[in-house]
Amino acid sequence: MNRVVIIGSGNLAEALARALAAARGLQLVQIHARNEERGREVARIAGCAWSGDPAALAPADLYLIAVSDRAVAEVAERLPIPHGAAVAHTAGSVPMEAIPAKFARRGVFYPMQTFTKGRAVDFRPIPIFLEASTPELLAELEEVAQRLSDRVIPADSERRSKIHLAAVFACNFANHMYALGEEIARSAGLDFDVLRALVAETAAKACDAASPRDVQTGPAVRGDRTTQERHEALIADPRMKEIYQTISQNIWETSRKI
Amino acid sequence: MNRVVIIGSGNLAEALARALAAARGLQLVQIHARNEERGREVARIAGCAWSGDPAALAPADLYLIAVSDRAVAEVAERLPIPHGAAVAHTAGSVPMEAIPAKFARRGVFYPMQTFTKGRAVDFRPIPIFLEASTPELLAELEEVAQRLSDRVIPADSERRSKIHLAAVFACNFANHMYALGEEIARSAGLDFDVLRALVAETAAKACDAASPRDVQTGPAVRGDRTTQERHEALIADPRMKEIYQTISQNIWETSRKI
Repeated sequence: MNRVVIIGSGNLAEALARALAAARGLQLVQIHARNEERGREVARIAGCAWSGDPAALAPADLYLIAVSDRAVAEVAERLPIPHGAAVAHTAGSVPMEAIPAKFARRGVFYPMQTFTKGRAVDFRPIPIFLEASTPELLAELEEVAQRLSDRVIPADSERRSKIHLAAVFACNFANHMYALGEEIARSAGLDFDVLRALVAETAAKACDAASPRDVQTGPAVRGDRTTQERHEALIADPRMKEIYQTISQNIWETSRKI
Repeated sequence: MNRVVIIGSGNLAEALARALAAARGLQLVQIHARNEERGREVARIAGCAWSGDPAALAPADLYLIAVSDRAVAEVAERLPIPHGAAVAHTAGSVPMEAIPAKFARRGVFYPMQTFTKGRAVDFRPIPIFLEASTPELLAELEEVAQRLSDRVIPADSERRSKIHLAAVFACNFANHMYALGEEIARSAGLDFDVLRALVAETAAKACDAASPRDVQTGPAVRGDRTTQERHEALIADPRMKEIYQTISQNIWETSRKI
């Protein structure tokens, strides 16, 4: 299994295209995407062909569907993908069964990372979670994934959903905490720049620790109510205050040595 | 103003001691701390003397009080610090007035970073927020701070409280999101290791962006209710569910282009 077509032109499609183009033993033969501008751009980045025409879908061993979660089923149904080919979607929280049963060789190929247009990332440390309709296909997908990453992990749909949820906390929610920090800094006449060293060190410290719990700092873990009351008095927005209180309470509860 | 005594032996005291010991034009003359073991350890790291005896407090131009927020006033009151010396505490959310008024030259010297025992950090990008009882003292503290950091910012107590609150979100709360991610990953039989690449990239991406809002990803910012419902069904703990819903709602509300 070495000829691969990527279907889609979003952030994940671009990152996969970069990684596949650079991998030994794999051939990225086509980016298939409806959005011509983005499709051409991703194809240019990866040095391969683009097509938006279903009739021109290239023959391949593996079709990786990297489209929005909701579009997986419809895209797999609509495109003239050969029924004997392997078809995998790349979404963290979509069941494998979203791919129509007419594909006997269906699976999931989920790289857990946050991807951004135009931003290259090192794929080797990114965990890739795999699921497949047969043990044979799982072994084939493992071989492909190992050419991209050092961490290839089989995971059925339920396990993968949990992993995706973990990623939402560690990535999406953490990023929102940076954004709320920025908002508060702005209320003090300062911009996000003032928080950059702190954000970088917080992540570096957690990554160097056995567990982020071991390096938790701040008033909540100390049970410092005086500081928390000063903070609460500074927050006018009710939802932000609720976030402050709920997270503080949870830090305190989960850090207590009972 | 070049002879400095640090009072305290916690994480911030250690980081300040490292930075002062390495700075040109400043002399760290003593670590004064009640906890002998930690006091000696910090003094060893910084290559200076330790004392726990109030009668042996060394003469200096500046006394930096790096103790717990609640202990600032009592420590400043109790120790035989010469009334003519400059005395500054290092706490983000403690008013300058916690230092007794008998010190005409009192101030605040707050480096905004998360510090950990045994972990060296580069002090140059760390913002140091200063407050002082007189313009003359502010200028003197600025000169000291500039020997440690490239970002020295005057901030009265109210502004500093807001900055400290911003830091709690961007650091303490972000770290707790990593910890919750770890907890969920463990429920899927995986440890924190699987999240490290994601945590590192999330922080790096935010730091490289103009604003963390620009790089927000995930189901909440897309308004993807299907995925959110799948996630909510996986969360048994009521407080974790509340955190999931409140943060998701806030990401959606604050990202909508109205």
